[in-house]
This record gives sequence, C-alpha cells and structure tokens, in this order.
Amino acid sequence: MLKDVLANQESYQPGLSIDCVIFGFHNNQLKVLLIKTRYSDLWALPGGFVSIDEGIDEAAVTVLYGRTGLKGIFLRQFSTFGSARRCNVDFSNSVLDFYGIPIKEGKWFASRFVTVGYYALVDFLQAIPPEDGKNDIIEWIDHNDVPELILDHKEILNTALQTLRMELNLMPVGYNLLPEKFTIPELQKLYETILGRKLDRRNFLRKITAIGILTKLNEKKSNVAHKAPNLYSFDKEKYEEVVKNGLTQGW
Amino acid sequence: MLKDVLANQESYQPGLSIDCVIFGFHNNQLKVLLIKTRYSDLWALPGGFVSIDEGIDEAAVTVLYGRTGLKGIFLRQFSTFGSARRCNVDFSNSVLDFYGIPIKEGKWFASRFVTVGYYALVDFLQAIPPEDGKNDIIEWIDHNDVPELILDHKEILNTALQTLRMELNLMPVGYNLLPEKFTIPELQKLYETILGRKLDRRNFLRKITAIGILTKLNEKKSNVAHKAPNLYSFDKEKYEEVVKNGLTQGW
Repeated sequence: MLKDVLANQESYQPGLSIDCVIFGFHNNQLKVLLIKTRYSDLWALPGGFVSIDEGIDEAAVTVLYGRTGLKGIFLRQFSTFGSARRCNVDFSNSVLDFYGIPIKEGKWFASRFVTVGYYALVDFLQAIPPEDGKNDIIEWIDHNDVPELILDHKEILNTALQTLRMELNLMPVGYNLLPEKFTIPELQKLYETILGRKLDRRNFLRKITAIGILTKLNEKKSNVAHKAPNLYSFDKEKYEEVVKNGLTQGW
Repeated sequence: MLKDVLANQESYQPGLSIDCVIFGFHNNQLKVLLIKTRYSDLWALPGGFVSIDEGIDEAAVTVLYGRTGLKGIFLRQFSTFGSARRCNVDFSNSVLDFYGIPIKEGKWFASRFVTVGYYALVDFLQAIPPEDGKNDIIEWIDHNDVPELILDHKEILNTALQTLRMELNLMPVGYNLLPEKFTIPELQKLYETILGRKLDRRNFLRKITAIGILTKLNEKKSNVAHKAPNLYSFDKEKYEEVVKNGLTQGW
C-alpha cells in the first residue's frame, strides 16, 4: 500500500493520513481489526492516504472496504491527531520500518503527518477482505488483549473506544450487529460488551424501549426451556431517524 | 497573517489549516466571532496555519488568543473538513482574494487545504484582542444573523453549533459565562440560548441539580420585588470532574 503511494506521491495530499478503528462485534465479543506485516513485530491500525482530489471521508470508506470488503457501513470521523510528537521524523520512519521500506525510498513520508481518525462497528463474521487487501496479516483481536501498536495507534484506538461508548448516549447501536430477530437480553449484552460493564436489566429495558426503535414481535425465542423471552426487531425507518437526529433525551 | 505565512511557507505544514468557531455568550445573547478585511465584502471564521513543529491543538490556542486575548479557555476540536470540494483551486484562491493577495504570490496556498475545526465558548465582554490581532475587522455577530461567509465556513459554523448543542448532553456549561453567583433561571436561560428553544422549568431544575455541580448559597437575589430566587455558584472541583468524565446519565 505505502509502496504504491510512494511511487505516485504527487497524487497524494502531503502530510495527511487516515486511520480506521474498525470494531467488530459478534456473540458478545468486541474485537478490533489490526494489521501486521512480515517486517515488524508490532501491529497497526489499518490506514491509508488521501488522493489529492479525494475527500477524506471517501478515503476512509476505501480503507474500510479494502480491509473488510464492507460498504455502506456507519463510519464516523471522531478526531484528528496532530500533536507535536507527530512532527518527529523518527515517528514517520517507524512506518517505513513497518512496511520494510528503506528510509531513502520513503522521503515523501519522512515529514510530519497529521492523521484523521474514523471508527466503524461491524459484525466481524461478515468481514471478508477483497483479494488485494490480503498482502498484510489481518486479524480481529479482542479489545482487551490489544498488543503494542506502532506510533500513537494505541491512543487513537483508546480515543475511538471512548467515543463509541460516549455515542451510545447519543444514538442507538445494534443494527447489522444482531440477528434480524433478537431478545432484549441479547441487545443488553451488546451494550454491556461495548461499555465494559454490567447494566441494570429494568433500567435498560425502560430506556431502550423509550427510544422507540424496537418492534415487539409476536414470537418467543425457541430452544429456551421456560420463560422464553420475546423476540424483537429494529424498526429500520425509526432507527435511521434516531441515528440522524440523535437521542432527544437531553434538556 | 496569511502574508507572514507565505513569506515563511517552508515552516508550515502544507495543506493544513485551523478554523476556530468562537461562540460568545453574555446576557442571554449567543454571538459568533467573525473577521473581515478591507479587500472583501465577505466574512470569515478566524483561522490560522500550523507550524511544521507545532501541535494542532497549540495552533488553535494561538488563533483563539490572537483574536480574543483569552487563554486557558475550554477549546475543543470537533471535526476536520476535507471534502473533495475543498480540492478546488478556486476554493483556496478565494482566501487570497479575502486577504487581497495576488494569486501569483500565493502559490503555496493554491493547493488543496484540509482544515481542522475547533470551537470555544467565552464571555464576549471579556474578549479583548491583543494589538497585533487588530489588523482585521473583528466583530461579534448574533448567531441568528450570520452573513455570507467565505469557503465552507458557514458549514463549519453550523457543525460547531450542532456539536455544542449535543455536548450539553455530555457535559455542563456555564463556568466563566455567568456571574460568580447566579440563579437557576439565569443558568436555564444560558441553556435555552444555546439550544435555541424553551425548556421546562421543573425538568431543568431536576436535571441540573442531579449533576451535582451546584452549591446552593445562603443568599437570595436582591433587587427582586418578591419571591426572590436563591443564588447558586459552581462547585469548581466537581464541575471540572464532570467536564473530564462526562455526564454519567447514560446506560
């Protein structure tokens, strides 16, 4: 990836990169997509650069697609990282090390880079990288077991997780992450996994119902011995309305 | 400002700018700080560029200080603007027009710029620009009467206002904007002015009290004929704790 960019450096916005924190949820596990090359023992967030005539949001969509094969996924810019620490030439050189590129071939990259962070939340079982995204090692790693990352990628990841947790107060999550029909306990588990703590069952039921995005189905969960819980589905229209306008709990 | 940058262009991060949306509150008025030059009929957000060895947050602090003389103010990065539209050379040239700089002298600027947006909320009566910030016309304009702005500055301003309104759900505001002793109706007015709508008195009282940042004083507002309302002050320690950790209403 970086090799192609270095060969066409005039076509890229100088000093600007994109980093994507792709969270994957499935079966009450929250993982993060990380990449590795054969040149380095460290892991990294998947990232990319911005063509000179391309919008930054579009560049982020390309990164997400290139690593997961997924399109049309909720992808949100959350912060731009441009501290003085990032001005250090060694900082950029460690990316060249990561990709096994000699420093003299990577001069374009040996300057100060500011990076725009995006995050997405996908069902990790649905993520299948397209052929040309397979040059690097791609792995889903539990968010509690993330190893050492290059540059300030750990900080970027932590900020994304904080943002995701905070945004649970502003909009619903769950669409695309749960089966089409799910129970309230399953939805609560999703929230608990993201937040990293237990929630009160009654409070959760009251609050999630108040949002008005759930349709109670005339069906119970099967394979459950007794007291089978009711099944629900998302009212997609209302769900998207709330994502657009935000939860209007507020003042 | 731009002239100095063009004379030392190697010392600046290429293709990157900072724009600050500085909201000013006083006496139930919410205004926005805008600047104008004698070369253009349009107004603009105050902005700047980033030295090659300077962090983006520090660059934003410099812009805020340069236009208001204020330091140590809550200043928050809210979004980075880098759409394909911003790649248009005419886009950058309109900034040169704004500063009355011939296009051939502004070549450094005639490329694609991505801008990082910051917002602040200050008491506009306390803002006094330092001497060298006075080359341009600086004015506080009511947020409902903002005229046409250059580039995508109107979009940046609107996004900042949306963010400020949304963040009222995540953290308290009011410190530095109200007198040291204030009444609950005065604090409610601040929230109503920012949100642009009326709030229910009882609901507001209940919610704002629940946050635990207010100290009820043993004093009543004077100059009020009857039913004088109680005075309050912010518990600064708790206030800062909540700003740091966020309102924990949530799940």
